[in-house]
Amino acid sequence: MKTRIAILGYGNLGRGVEAAIAQNDDLELAAVFTRRDPASLKLHTPGVPAVSASELAAWKDRVDVLILCGGSATDLPVQTPLCASMFNVVDSYDTHKKIPQHFAAVDAAAKAAGTVGLISCGWDPGLFSLARVYAGAVLPQGKDETFWGRGVSQGHSDAIRRIEGVVDAREYTVPVQAAVDAVRRGEQPELTVRDKHLRECYVVAAEGADKARIEREIKTMPYYFDEYDTSVSFISAEELARDHAGLPHGGSVLRGGVTGFDREHKQTIEFSLKLDSNPEFTGSVLAACARAVHRLQQAGQSGCKTILDLPPALLSPLSPEELRAHCL
Amino acid sequence: MKTRIAILGYGNLGRGVEAAIAQNDDLELAAVFTRRDPASLKLHTPGVPAVSASELAAWKDRVDVLILCGGSATDLPVQTPLCASMFNVVDSYDTHKKIPQHFAAVDAAAKAAGTVGLISCGWDPGLFSLARVYAGAVLPQGKDETFWGRGVSQGHSDAIRRIEGVVDAREYTVPVQAAVDAVRRGEQPELTVRDKHLRECYVVAAEGADKARIEREIKTMPYYFDEYDTSVSFISAEELARDHAGLPHGGSVLRGGVTGFDREHKQTIEFSLKLDSNPEFTGSVLAACARAVHRLQQAGQSGCKTILDLPPALLSPLSPEELRAHCL
Repeated sequence: MKTRIAILGYGNLGRGVEAAIAQNDDLELAAVFTRRDPASLKLHTPGVPAVSASELAAWKDRVDVLILCGGSATDLPVQTPLCASMFNVVDSYDTHKKIPQHFAAVDAAAKAAGTVGLISCGWDPGLFSLARVYAGAVLPQGKDETFWGRGVSQGHSDAIRRIEGVVDAREYTVPVQAAVDAVRRGEQPELTVRDKHLRECYVVAAEGADKARIEREIKTMPYYFDEYDTSVSFISAEELARDHAGLPHGGSVLRGGVTGFDREHKQTIEFSLKLDSNPEFTGSVLAACARAVHRLQQAGQSGCKTILDLPPALLSPLSPEELRAHCL
Repeated sequence: MKTRIAILGYGNLGRGVEAAIAQNDDLELAAVFTRRDPASLKLHTPGVPAVSASELAAWKDRVDVLILCGGSATDLPVQTPLCASMFNVVDSYDTHKKIPQHFAAVDAAAKAAGTVGLISCGWDPGLFSLARVYAGAVLPQGKDETFWGRGVSQGHSDAIRRIEGVVDAREYTVPVQAAVDAVRRGEQPELTVRDKHLRECYVVAAEGADKARIEREIKTMPYYFDEYDTSVSFISAEELARDHAGLPHGGSVLRGGVTGFDREHKQTIEFSLKLDSNPEFTGSVLAACARAVHRLQQAGQSGCKTILDLPPALLSPLSPEELRAHCL
């Protein structure tokens, strides 16, 4: 019997989850829920209904796991606890600082309902968190660094778009290669924010806009850009559409540590991703996690979990016997 | 209260475990067991007794987890099930093909005794197995490749030493960079054994030995060398001691996959290790796993486990709350 998955929110991430489900024989898409007019959605999977989010409760017994594909700023803090009172849920909540309070809200709702809620499980937070925890446990005397990119940051692109005179924009976060290399060599360097990443901005300005002002406003924008070396290139709308339509991303978690009675041996652990499509990859992680969540609930568990609580074998379609014989 | 760990077998790996325990505040070394004369052991940790392996049973209540540091060929198949009848145990059994039968033997002993036995948890099998399982679950339409090295293979070095006229030898397994790069680019190439690794041998020959014959015997040795491009360099005992005393190792697990409704996006996941000391790193993994095993047994579990069954959080000295706040 397949695990019946529903999606709430049909943007880039929702479509990424839909594509991932199609790649897994033991998963099937039951429905896509939306706050828009369901008739406006064109799903890719044949025979699957688009349903108004207002009808969620009626699907309680037809869905094993609901994957929430809304945003972390305003959607998920409300949706995940609410939906956890009806469904097993999975989200990719990524406001790192507020994870403990999101966890508490989902935990209360899920425990009351006897469901499992898995939060913050994309790639960062998610697979990168796993890399940090495993590496930290194995090399307690060490230091880890996370590098992001080269990839499109939606948050930074949005921040540029809010500047007066900007029609559209794309921001790439770019790791500084010299910093990556130093960490990779196990040197454990002290790195500032500026040492680690560059910000590369491609901006379409409105006719007659003051480009010097736009560039200045970008480069001095607090938190987003002021602590970084930032480059700004003005391009046409056509160039943006032609050269910057994709959503690539990636990055690395590196931990350099020392072992031995005299700490005489350097050891380096690296976990890296190189992604042509950030939302499709994140969707693929969420789909594998939905499998694990369903199995956890079937084993009698409830409450909020993170990927750090999931036995890795639960994410795999293979049986424990197959995993031991072929993957161990 | 610290987790009390004992070590059985005081070779390179046993010393690596001892060094790892000294780096973890919540772990302490209770004893080192040996089949040699205990008086011949010089332990590094002050105040810890070296004890004859024949006295193991008497330590049942003074040890929380026993880490087995013997070899996979003959020691562990006997020792791990036997010790699991008295202790929670951890081993790094690495004969991949025989893991299912080793699992069954340890599972029976551990279930009967109410202990937890964690097998095959170094870095391969171990951390590399984790990388294969996570990457396979996230990218079902893909292919993974494991590369080992550059590093010293003890098994291959031993095989050379058994050839007549060889005094000592060191073999390095070396990944072929072009193959690594192709996999890293997501090309999913078909690779033969020869395409993936080279074997580099440094040999000290006995006075007057027939070097041409030794070289021929190495290069044609079935399984160990015949399927590889192998280089043989004859060096002096002094050069071997000076240039090849260390036990570095490492390697990579790479998975290239595709996502999207038309499989149009390449995604690459990489997990890599660069190790100055293989036994100290393996010992560090075993120590973190011992922490997890103790917690599992305290939570009421028993039987044989692998690292694929362990929630990652159990390996970390940090609490679940700390992990969510700082690592997720």
